[in-house]
Amino acid sequence: MKKLSLLIIASLVIFSCKQTQKDTALNSADFSKQEKKDSTNIKHFFNTALKEGKAYDWLEDLTTNVGSRLSGSEGAAKAVVWGEKLMNEIGLDSVWLQPVMVPHWVRGEKEVANYSFKGKKIHVPVCALGGSIATPSNGITAEVIEVKSIEEAELLGEKANGKIVFFNGRFDNTLINTFKAYGGCVGQRFAGASTVGKFGAKAIIVRSMTNGIDDYPHTGSMGYGDIPTSEYIPSAAISSRAAENLSKHLKENPRLKFYLKQSCKTLPDAPSHNVVGEIKGSENPDKIMVIGGHLDSWDLGDGAHDDGTGIVQSLEVAYLLKKNNIKPKNTIRIVFFMNEENGLRGAKEYARLAKVNGEIHIGALESDAGGHTPRGFSIDANDKNIHLLQSWKKLLAPYGLHDITKGGSGADISPLKNDEITLVGYRPDSQRYFDYHHAASDTFDKVNKRELELGSASMVSIVYLMDKYLYTNETLKP
Amino acid sequence: MKKLSLLIIASLVIFSCKQTQKDTALNSADFSKQEKKDSTNIKHFFNTALKEGKAYDWLEDLTTNVGSRLSGSEGAAKAVVWGEKLMNEIGLDSVWLQPVMVPHWVRGEKEVANYSFKGKKIHVPVCALGGSIATPSNGITAEVIEVKSIEEAELLGEKANGKIVFFNGRFDNTLINTFKAYGGCVGQRFAGASTVGKFGAKAIIVRSMTNGIDDYPHTGSMGYGDIPTSEYIPSAAISSRAAENLSKHLKENPRLKFYLKQSCKTLPDAPSHNVVGEIKGSENPDKIMVIGGHLDSWDLGDGAHDDGTGIVQSLEVAYLLKKNNIKPKNTIRIVFFMNEENGLRGAKEYARLAKVNGEIHIGALESDAGGHTPRGFSIDANDKNIHLLQSWKKLLAPYGLHDITKGGSGADISPLKNDEITLVGYRPDSQRYFDYHHAASDTFDKVNKRELELGSASMVSIVYLMDKYLYTNETLKP
Repeated sequence: MKKLSLLIIASLVIFSCKQTQKDTALNSADFSKQEKKDSTNIKHFFNTALKEGKAYDWLEDLTTNVGSRLSGSEGAAKAVVWGEKLMNEIGLDSVWLQPVMVPHWVRGEKEVANYSFKGKKIHVPVCALGGSIATPSNGITAEVIEVKSIEEAELLGEKANGKIVFFNGRFDNTLINTFKAYGGCVGQRFAGASTVGKFGAKAIIVRSMTNGIDDYPHTGSMGYGDIPTSEYIPSAAISSRAAENLSKHLKENPRLKFYLKQSCKTLPDAPSHNVVGEIKGSENPDKIMVIGGHLDSWDLGDGAHDDGTGIVQSLEVAYLLKKNNIKPKNTIRIVFFMNEENGLRGAKEYARLAKVNGEIHIGALESDAGGHTPRGFSIDANDKNIHLLQSWKKLLAPYGLHDITKGGSGADISPLKNDEITLVGYRPDSQRYFDYHHAASDTFDKVNKRELELGSASMVSIVYLMDKYLYTNETLKP
Repeated sequence: MKKLSLLIIASLVIFSCKQTQKDTALNSADFSKQEKKDSTNIKHFFNTALKEGKAYDWLEDLTTNVGSRLSGSEGAAKAVVWGEKLMNEIGLDSVWLQPVMVPHWVRGEKEVANYSFKGKKIHVPVCALGGSIATPSNGITAEVIEVKSIEEAELLGEKANGKIVFFNGRFDNTLINTFKAYGGCVGQRFAGASTVGKFGAKAIIVRSMTNGIDDYPHTGSMGYGDIPTSEYIPSAAISSRAAENLSKHLKENPRLKFYLKQSCKTLPDAPSHNVVGEIKGSENPDKIMVIGGHLDSWDLGDGAHDDGTGIVQSLEVAYLLKKNNIKPKNTIRIVFFMNEENGLRGAKEYARLAKVNGEIHIGALESDAGGHTPRGFSIDANDKNIHLLQSWKKLLAPYGLHDITKGGSGADISPLKNDEITLVGYRPDSQRYFDYHHAASDTFDKVNKRELELGSASMVSIVYLMDKYLYTNETLKP
């Protein structure tokens, strides 16, 4: 016995040298009685998610059996059926579909891009941007002119005439939050074509929106706005590595000829749906909190992180409430929004109907920043409610939720904005997100089960607190 | 122009709805002049790591061109040469090797495990545990008895006689910090064999130490302590999925026969080295701070997360100091420790020599918890110094370093422990770590470049602050 105990102690000493952080979830010496109760309920949410969570299985089902879900596609239609069925299965009080017409852009045949350099043919990983027109059926061949920003492109004038304009602005990798780096670059993708179409450019190619160097073209939306259709030019993304190489090759041979072929097109708007389900509020059934993500995805991967994770986490909020016998005071409404990626039509229709029907939305939470490890929430609300949500920091910190900050919330819930509503965005760690974003690499295998589950539990925890404290009897009166 | 501006604004509005967290690194309204300077230097460390960091390339080189590095192996010897060369290349003031004799255990032929169930042969993913003896050359076939813990195994007595004891204790997945779940299970792996050898068990098989269900056997160290060699029995790990299945099958057929064959053995101790390099302190060259990780790894993967990341991050601490022209007051010593995994011989020898040579170590920092996104540091020091390090929270929080907690530090620096030294463990996010830990899946592709670089920058930031504030002129005097 003694020898064995020594061995065990030895092994634990080795372990304890490596291991240090405490599980401080219920270390609540400085908590009030109410906070202790809330802390216990939050711990139960996390325990349930980590032991009996459904989100990972749901996500595997969505990404494997439905797959990509571009607005207007067969996949999107299947996803609506999938979502409605699942909402019914977990026993929400009511489930319904909201019809909405959505853009219907199709990629067509696989795109081709290449050029010759020093006698060698360089094949470029390429994809059309969502909303772009096609090239002529035999493609476009033209010289390339490189710029680093929309501002630089605006100054091109005649120099762009007859050229393919190459937008090669890089992410600022020194920004800790990668969404901020995305924000600094995405204008090139969205407005590149409309910026240089008027100069007679033949097409644009855009460096993929990602932090690193990889071989995936990352798609995403672009728009022509209200420029004349005569100025519409094809827009495509090339991989970041291809962009690095092309930039080098152009320095050696500024006259090299780039070939681009794509056959995408925009069909007439297609019928689709938001999927909506709710748990009726026990005290204030007419006060609504929305929890959602977007059901559509781009077509290249299976839309696991964007936004499959947001969909399954949103539904798991309802599942975790029910599983823990928490009866919300206010109505909790789960919404799978359609068409976030290239139109936001579902979100706009949801907000329009809410207004038409005189619904009172007191809060909304969106998960559309990937399924990575939890970091916090950002809040778009009045100062009083921002302060209220920040007062829950000590309840949330044990779960890595330290960043409870003032900021934006989410594209799909933003049309609900008014002076009273508290809009919240779930913020997981952002470091890996743009590795997969809008690319063929955004697949189920990139999602970690625990990180996904921790996200669901993080979301239901803030929903629980918002439901309980956002509107007290006092604040309910106008 | 107007139309285009509208387009750009539209795209940025879409973005700003999705994006919210601010890059608050230099948002220092409430900082003192000194804190502003420190905040600026820390920002420079992060900028340099994210723009010109070397850690990722070094790690690719180590994992690809050296590969796995089990103590005593050819890989470990190559790693020593690799480390010494690299330390010289980045221009440390001096670089040397510390000879140390290390255990030399070899796995031998690929292990085999299987059993028949309902007429079907079930092949079990299996690997020997480090330090285990072999089975007879024709293997062992025996009935299986399942337990969930060392405590339960202690009670087996005669029931274990002639059996293979199956340790199937699962990680407690409700623990947010996965290292804590590991701590609750690892005793089975380390001391399982010595616990049931005395009962006449023929072998043990242990459920792999991981949170999830996968098909990898995860190896790791075990020990026989000072039990008689007649009680030594073979020890192996089986994959978590195989463990789940075996447990089910045993319920249906408690008499099923399990076959295990492994040919590992322990050779005489082998010569090896710690690799040491330093930047001489400008004011107190005799005061030393150690920054390190362990150069050895298990043999199944390429030791990317355990502990290739710790090695390259430790070296990058020196690189980032030099690149930013920070001349440390105290001597900064980078140590690549040998043999953390199955003996800690390098760490013990380093500490022994430090004592023999009368060296004064004021601090030490270890990175041996994977290369994932930064979360914080844990500190093993006197209360004054714990408080000091915690006072830097606001400088570190903008980089996601919120968890500055009292706790352990690291296995390799723990032999340096005394009343004065401040020992610190770097704590990245733990959620994914045990997916790869000690398994064939611990490979370079699991490491994210930005997360690795953020870790290096986190480490150099706390080293910079410790160097500056840990020992002032006042506290230097005894």
